[in-house]
Amino acid sequence: MSVKIINVGEQILGANEEKAKENKKRLDKAGVLTINIMSSPGAGKTSLIMSTIKALGKKVRIAVIEGDVASSVDADKVNALGIPAVQINTAGGCHLEAGMVTKALDGLPLDKTDLLFIENVGNLICTNSYALGEDIRLMIASMPEGDDKPIKYPAMFADSDVIIISKIDLQPYLDFNEKAFLNVVNGLNPDVTIFPLSCKTGKGMDAWYKWLEAEVKNKKGK
Amino acid sequence: MSVKIINVGEQILGANEEKAKENKKRLDKAGVLTINIMSSPGAGKTSLIMSTIKALGKKVRIAVIEGDVASSVDADKVNALGIPAVQINTAGGCHLEAGMVTKALDGLPLDKTDLLFIENVGNLICTNSYALGEDIRLMIASMPEGDDKPIKYPAMFADSDVIIISKIDLQPYLDFNEKAFLNVVNGLNPDVTIFPLSCKTGKGMDAWYKWLEAEVKNKKGK
Repeated sequence: MSVKIINVGEQILGANEEKAKENKKRLDKAGVLTINIMSSPGAGKTSLIMSTIKALGKKVRIAVIEGDVASSVDADKVNALGIPAVQINTAGGCHLEAGMVTKALDGLPLDKTDLLFIENVGNLICTNSYALGEDIRLMIASMPEGDDKPIKYPAMFADSDVIIISKIDLQPYLDFNEKAFLNVVNGLNPDVTIFPLSCKTGKGMDAWYKWLEAEVKNKKGK
Repeated sequence: MSVKIINVGEQILGANEEKAKENKKRLDKAGVLTINIMSSPGAGKTSLIMSTIKALGKKVRIAVIEGDVASSVDADKVNALGIPAVQINTAGGCHLEAGMVTKALDGLPLDKTDLLFIENVGNLICTNSYALGEDIRLMIASMPEGDDKPIKYPAMFADSDVIIISKIDLQPYLDFNEKAFLNVVNGLNPDVTIFPLSCKTGKGMDAWYKWLEAEVKNKKGK
């Protein structure tokens, strides 16, 4: 399976919301649960996707759209697992936009897909301002980034449906005040679903998988 | 000493380069070595500044401009050390611009400053496109972010004068291939100066302080 690369350059924004609604309609019709994954660079977006493919890939038909400023290393990794993947290169753009996703959807077998991960560009600032057509907005906060991130990037934490606290295996070696972190997060976003986990050790992963499988079934049932 | 907060909102770009040159001229005249510090969120920009203030603050007169999407937590921390600090809040903007720095400079005692740190917004994508008037462009790559960041964010690594590899105390617990990382960095930027260090354990800090003191003296001598 070869990786498709779409070079979109820096697009003028335009009717992003409109295009996102069209994407959503198309994905709803195909019964595909779609998750927009956002985080800082290196927080573990690709690792979460890879672990989830390995755990659920035989039960759930997964496809992936990879967004990056440059390179196709992430799509290559996903592709090596036998999963359909489209790479979007934004050529310097800070975030994915709905129109880029529309093009990427053309390259995916939606009628054979239950779950679509859209890995956004690594950026805690603009990504959350652009709807892509997703059902779920998921952000990953990496524990080594520190407990003050919700104070410094409040919009991202406030807008997410799910927050994953990643790399919890490093907790013994960090000065991460989990209580302070959760206090601010709950203040910004009282209804958010939170999964602390480590893709490396597997700790906390089962709760994420279980929740995700239920969401996929729920979407199929609609 | 109270923290000054400048709310700039989302500005239209305009003549950034021109304003950066004006800032540079003003800082050159005052003999202030100016370092633009860029990184992902949570890579350790504020920690580097705080450690450097503690180590050199009695020998070198330091001032700080803090750039953040929201909050003044960083400027508050710096201010608590008795160091002049101005907070710029970009209100959602992804990067600092030269015009924001011009305003911030008005709030600092440049004639009593040897070294100015400008802590940019936590973002590996756009920040390097906007000159601020600095002498040195410094980026921090946090080891927990992974060794593939130079491939994924090449512009930032190619454009920096100095790269700090931070949080090296975590190396035993990470799968970070330092050789692979350095190979790509050297390919992108053969002349870059690299300091691997840990603000937590102090490892590698002396080389950074020594280099920095020499740069400050060099600037004063001009």
